Amino acid sequence: MPRLVDHSERRRAIIETTWQLIAERGIENASMRDIARACGYAAPGVLAHYFPNKNELLLASYELICERTNERIDAATVGRRGLDALLALCLEIIPAEDLTTVEAKVAVSFWQRAQTDAALRHVGREALSCWHASIMTCLAQAQAEGDGPGTADPDLFADELLNTMMGLHITAMLDPGAMSGSRQRRLIESMLERIAVSCTA
Amino acid sequence: MPRLVDHSERRRAIIETTWQLIAERGIENASMRDIARACGYAAPGVLAHYFPNKNELLLASYELICERTNERIDAATVGRRGLDALLALCLEIIPAEDLTTVEAKVAVSFWQRAQTDAALRHVGREALSCWHASIMTCLAQAQAEGDGPGTADPDLFADELLNTMMGLHITAMLDPGAMSGSRQRRLIESMLERIAVSCTA
Repeated sequence: MPRLVDHSERRRAIIETTWQLIAERGIENASMRDIARACGYAAPGVLAHYFPNKNELLLASYELICERTNERIDAATVGRRGLDALLALCLEIIPAEDLTTVEAKVAVSFWQRAQTDAALRHVGREALSCWHASIMTCLAQAQAEGDGPGTADPDLFADELLNTMMGLHITAMLDPGAMSGSRQRRLIESMLERIAVSCTA
Repeated sequence: MPRLVDHSERRRAIIETTWQLIAERGIENASMRDIARACGYAAPGVLAHYFPNKNELLLASYELICERTNERIDAATVGRRGLDALLALCLEIIPAEDLTTVEAKVAVSFWQRAQTDAALRHVGREALSCWHASIMTCLAQAQAEGDGPGTADPDLFADELLNTMMGLHITAMLDPGAMSGSRQRRLIESMLERIAVSCTA
């Protein structure tokens, strides 16, 4: 009887090893051979069976991170709505904790390569679009339930929040002292407080 | 009589060629040999005389971009103060124009490598710190001259603005259609309008 190999399980194990290498030394300092070795494969050929090149591997790594982030968002927002749900969503995206800090490193590596790879850009765009839609849903709930409204232009606010969260991936990496986890949370909270307290100027 | 070579002029020419290659194909797809060839050097040895490795070259490229951005900011803010000067400053940083879009590509490449290189992070941190200080100066002028105050916590507003601008480097690259130059300007303008119109809620 032939040995059954769980293809998707192996892919996932490779991706998790890749995350570790990216976090430790950066994607450009990890060759496919290094990654194969860290996965316990004697030759890079086995790895190539799953991922033909680094961009494919980075794409799959980024997709899995988005998927897991969205799973965590779903879990964190159960029974919550409006601005309360929106805060929970943001806290799963910003690099204020150890886990999200590793995810941010993968994201920055991914973005660098996305600059010259349309397929990667497409996936990055989908992730932004998905989060933008979730933010809009939370804002609509907040408005319907009288949390807010606080913002005359929810779409613009969603863009501001999304750009701030992406920016935190950069600033917290460059200056973790100034942009600590608590500072990041304070920044997001202040943006939500601003629309929670109606400004009628 | 020996031929005089302007060292700093050569360095600058190499950096400008590097910008072009980064913008066209990405730093990871340009070897030191490719860069040497594009600079008109027959062998990479000459290039190595100026920049021993890619990180040094990328560091110098990023530093020159920051320097030029700051020169443009100085020129654009002559005779302007407060929120008017702040808008001019932001427009030199966000990737809403062709020039700043190329600069943003170099920045994203730089950030990716800064993740695993403390010297690069240090330079990136200095740039953020310089811009943060300039933003604070504009906010203090705005407050002193009654433009605002509009924000009870200028430091937090400066962080929000800075993170939004860094985030735009990512979102405009991933989704240039949605995050067009005019949309980017609208986003920044709305943030400044918010503190120009005093909110006393």
